[in-house]
Amino acid sequence: MRTGCVAAVLALFPALCLAGELKAVALPAPETDGGKPLMQVLKERKSAREFEAGTLPMQVLSNLLWAATGVNRADGRRTAPTASNRQEMDVYVATAAGLYLYEVKGHRLEPVLAEDIRAATGTQAYVRDAAVNLVYVADFARMGQSSPENKVLYSAADTGFISQNVYLYCASQGLATVVRASVDREALAKKMKLRPDQRITLAQSVGYATK
Amino acid sequence: MRTGCVAAVLALFPALCLAGELKAVALPAPETDGGKPLMQVLKERKSAREFEAGTLPMQVLSNLLWAATGVNRADGRRTAPTASNRQEMDVYVATAAGLYLYEVKGHRLEPVLAEDIRAATGTQAYVRDAAVNLVYVADFARMGQSSPENKVLYSAADTGFISQNVYLYCASQGLATVVRASVDREALAKKMKLRPDQRITLAQSVGYATK
Repeated sequence: MRTGCVAAVLALFPALCLAGELKAVALPAPETDGGKPLMQVLKERKSAREFEAGTLPMQVLSNLLWAATGVNRADGRRTAPTASNRQEMDVYVATAAGLYLYEVKGHRLEPVLAEDIRAATGTQAYVRDAAVNLVYVADFARMGQSSPENKVLYSAADTGFISQNVYLYCASQGLATVVRASVDREALAKKMKLRPDQRITLAQSVGYATK
Repeated sequence: MRTGCVAAVLALFPALCLAGELKAVALPAPETDGGKPLMQVLKERKSAREFEAGTLPMQVLSNLLWAATGVNRADGRRTAPTASNRQEMDVYVATAAGLYLYEVKGHRLEPVLAEDIRAATGTQAYVRDAAVNLVYVADFARMGQSSPENKVLYSAADTGFISQNVYLYCASQGLATVVRASVDREALAKKMKLRPDQRITLAQSVGYATK
């Protein structure tokens, strides 16, 4: 009975048993005003594939994640839509310190893995240099009775909404970013200890542009 | 020989033989400065499903389409990325006047169909009231040798990038918008006379919010 209970807790909060000494991070409140004017941001939107070493200040990481898919209304709705408001997308955050899950409602980072797995988030050499690699993961278990093809379609579109927010935040903030499809999804999912229902859609590197 | 040539031209420019009296529209140059600050725009990003009648001023339509996926660099790259820069997404624009294709490089509307097909772009009653319904169409023929599932995934993500730009432009401009998956794709594709390789991913209504 107790074992079943522990198993249920671990199924709900897999981070509990994986994170080792990695601690949760309470992000500072996001700065939800300011930034460059939208049209200028759109003019500067681009992909960059060269990154300088360095970590993002906590306030920048907070703003980045809120821009990506943070709560922007009292009813818990977000900066990016999801099909039928299923909110099936999770954003994992791979940094030098380890792998975290962005817990949207609490605006915090939940520890997942005390290991720098940035290099495993993409096949390109530059991904290990980016301060942060976001890994977009769809939880098909939250997507109801849609067909398998529709789950792929909806979760990919929902990834696009989030990823474009990241692009625009980076353009506004002068950060380099690129979204990437070239990911060894099987190896990465194993490393992240994802359930079979959790599907990696895309990944996105964010960091400092080379001078 | 001449017939073959005409057929080839029609394959490249299907609009030529479908548009009847609908004329091409040279959009005014987009206003690529201004708009609200990005973080405020993200704070105001939402879906709205009630629209007042009315047409968009040509400058607003120009800005909207440029924001969506316009050219923002000298090399022809755009405000939204596409997988491997395939630029496989087309944005069709359904208005009261008829159906157009947004021709990105020339920043113009090419006539496709002299008919108001707004009501056919979604299953919801409100779609007929929106000033504009955008229909996102992936041309799988431009996507190389990707697997069918990857073509769905990439084109859906590429739709999401564009659609989020539309959301943010609408938030900045005080317009109502909602992206929609509930589309009778078979019926709409037939009406739009799409090739089998052209796949409707999503549609998006844009217009005036009800007071």
